[in-house]
Amino acid sequence: MILTVTLNAALDITYTVPALTPHASHRVREVRERPGGKGLNVARVLAALGHESVVTGFAGGPVGAVLRDLLAPLAPHDALVPIAGTSRRTLAVVDDASGDTTQLNETGPTVSPAEWAAFLSSYDSLLREARAVALCGSLPPGIHVGAYAQLVRRAHAADVPVLLDTSGEPLRRGIAARPDLVKPNADELARLTGSREPLRAARDARRRGAHTVVASLGPDGVLAATPEGVWQATPPAPVKGNPTGAGDSAVAGLLSGLVDRLPWPERLARAVALSAATVLAPAAGEFDAVAYEDLLPRIAVTERVAAA
Amino acid sequence: MILTVTLNAALDITYTVPALTPHASHRVREVRERPGGKGLNVARVLAALGHESVVTGFAGGPVGAVLRDLLAPLAPHDALVPIAGTSRRTLAVVDDASGDTTQLNETGPTVSPAEWAAFLSSYDSLLREARAVALCGSLPPGIHVGAYAQLVRRAHAADVPVLLDTSGEPLRRGIAARPDLVKPNADELARLTGSREPLRAARDARRRGAHTVVASLGPDGVLAATPEGVWQATPPAPVKGNPTGAGDSAVAGLLSGLVDRLPWPERLARAVALSAATVLAPAAGEFDAVAYEDLLPRIAVTERVAAA
Repeated sequence: MILTVTLNAALDITYTVPALTPHASHRVREVRERPGGKGLNVARVLAALGHESVVTGFAGGPVGAVLRDLLAPLAPHDALVPIAGTSRRTLAVVDDASGDTTQLNETGPTVSPAEWAAFLSSYDSLLREARAVALCGSLPPGIHVGAYAQLVRRAHAADVPVLLDTSGEPLRRGIAARPDLVKPNADELARLTGSREPLRAARDARRRGAHTVVASLGPDGVLAATPEGVWQATPPAPVKGNPTGAGDSAVAGLLSGLVDRLPWPERLARAVALSAATVLAPAAGEFDAVAYEDLLPRIAVTERVAAA
Repeated sequence: MILTVTLNAALDITYTVPALTPHASHRVREVRERPGGKGLNVARVLAALGHESVVTGFAGGPVGAVLRDLLAPLAPHDALVPIAGTSRRTLAVVDDASGDTTQLNETGPTVSPAEWAAFLSSYDSLLREARAVALCGSLPPGIHVGAYAQLVRRAHAADVPVLLDTSGEPLRRGIAARPDLVKPNADELARLTGSREPLRAARDARRRGAHTVVASLGPDGVLAATPEGVWQATPPAPVKGNPTGAGDSAVAGLLSGLVDRLPWPERLARAVALSAATVLAPAAGEFDAVAYEDLLPRIAVTERVAAA
């Protein structure tokens, strides 16, 4: 199975309103709820691709209970660790006419040292069955900023390839523990390295410890700096839609290609096709399976020759 | 005891953000939750004034469970009727710097005919113990627009004085069943009667069936058109603060004065002092007890001589 870790799992709530106006009162037309957090999204896409997937992280309180109830009928297996605090909500307020979205994200529950210890013990057990592990998203309060570095080292000790998808200081610290793969977007990569030139920044991130860096570049696809070479993969044409979850689908594509032992160009094509098919899907965070099959053979992957 | 009915009880959530910007992403600094809906607010103020209060209406699903958990340690007794649907949330997004608030209100659960029948049975039992009843707020989906008229008639049959505080068509229909008291604000009264002149509109509302109309006029206090005469009660000076819940506190003051058999001028003074003390309180929907005691003797109540 493939394990995904979401330390700050969330109940994703979507409100539809005619148009959000600050300091006015709005009647919410439609309320939707889904289990959220990057690792949960990744696990759902992995399951849709035919992989067994297991989600872990933390869930607690009444919001955590709703999250787990909504997760129960879905394909990923629930190995979330219970906590005393209440899981966070994320709220997307969507303007009905334009589709523009205003995002309000709660911080998340404070995790106690005993809960973190319980998680580590569960994580080590799950690693024994895992073919790959993805560490995804922000850290909840109470978790030390070097937590991802600790989880990367434990994955190495268990001989499980590890992908890290986070930002800021947890990314900086996590990279130093030498994960197999990081998948920053252009902004995260620039914040890490100080460079907005993707190839230069990706190489810098490799020097900081990541074996492979796959930078997601939005409509320009992905740029991969690997020990075997540098590739760029781009969709055949720009896709229009909701980019929510596109990065998580790319992570799922990379993990799927890793356990299927695909060569880099095919892995990247899978990641880019899934990402574009997610932008095209009507529901945020889902992917359009027909669009995926259609896009997959049409992703252009070009090797970039390294400068001397 | 005094009974308050909140058919569309809510979990009131407050998010504090630096400033709400449409189509941007926000990290929520603080999350607060309280049991809400007009009748619950009224019951809390009644309890703070020393009255035994009981809340009924509907609660269901995970949001209803949180609402009841938060209500349990408070003074009002919980007689909410369980439903299969999930109670609604209301979300207030407060800009930290200015205090300006953006409101997002969910519609509420659909109530089935069997659940409505269960409520009516419980309501009739509760009326046997009630010295007064207040019917408060909007109707959830599934409840017919004449529901308040039905509840007014049942209160009459049980010989319990009934106050109606709602708006739109439920107010129009409810008034026709001859409630003892309605407490519209200026906008609700104008929508009902077509007149923005408060005295004219209040008299019109009395002709439509309300025995007494107490119109809340914001900083101008209240105007009461009663069978015994017309009074206006005004605070000594304009008060600055958060008006959320000020109308509910006025309802509590009117009910409290009713069961204490106060003459109209004293009832109105109590309502206006509570309302102003609610605007002054730091937390939305609470009232400042010290400010209330200070304001009460300083409310100006003047009788308005009826035009020939």
